[in-house]
Amino acid sequence: MVALLSPSKIQELAALVPDWKIEGKHLILVKTFKDFIQAIEFVNKLVEPSETAKHHPDLEISYNQVTIRLTSHDAGGLTEKDFTLAQQISALG
Amino acid sequence: MVALLSPSKIQELAALVPDWKIEGKHLILVKTFKDFIQAIEFVNKLVEPSETAKHHPDLEISYNQVTIRLTSHDAGGLTEKDFTLAQQISALG
Repeated sequence: MVALLSPSKIQELAALVPDWKIEGKHLILVKTFKDFIQAIEFVNKLVEPSETAKHHPDLEISYNQVTIRLTSHDAGGLTEKDFTLAQQISALG
Repeated sequence: MVALLSPSKIQELAALVPDWKIEGKHLILVKTFKDFIQAIEFVNKLVEPSETAKHHPDLEISYNQVTIRLTSHDAGGLTEKDFTLAQQISALG
């Protein structure tokens, strides 16, 4: 199990993923696309990095909007796995 | 705009989609798959019927579980479009 991060470490890592917001135990990114098709295309791009990391974001899709929520359920909060996957997701464009 | 259904018509149509539950103004189906990959594969199958109907379910994906939520936002509740799409989604297996 990956260790929970301290609040100061979370602040430090948050600077690396400025497009994400931190809400409690979650990293959250909301992305808006042209339409439903493009939203689903983006969701497909999440599969490979998630499977490789064995870490899976919770997703909400509402027409052209995708909300991505990361946390480490087993650790009970944010860990380095969340920040690493967040960076990879941001890099998908 | 498609007309809102009366409560009695909703009861009648609900019998055609026994795997869905009705919660307020929504039809809801929760499907559980083997893993994240299969959950996303199912989400991909929703694209064609949704685009054809010009009607899009709200989706939540949590690892191997997909929650599908249908309502007619423009009409402010359930319409025949929701039941038609629900039947098509159930038929996807």
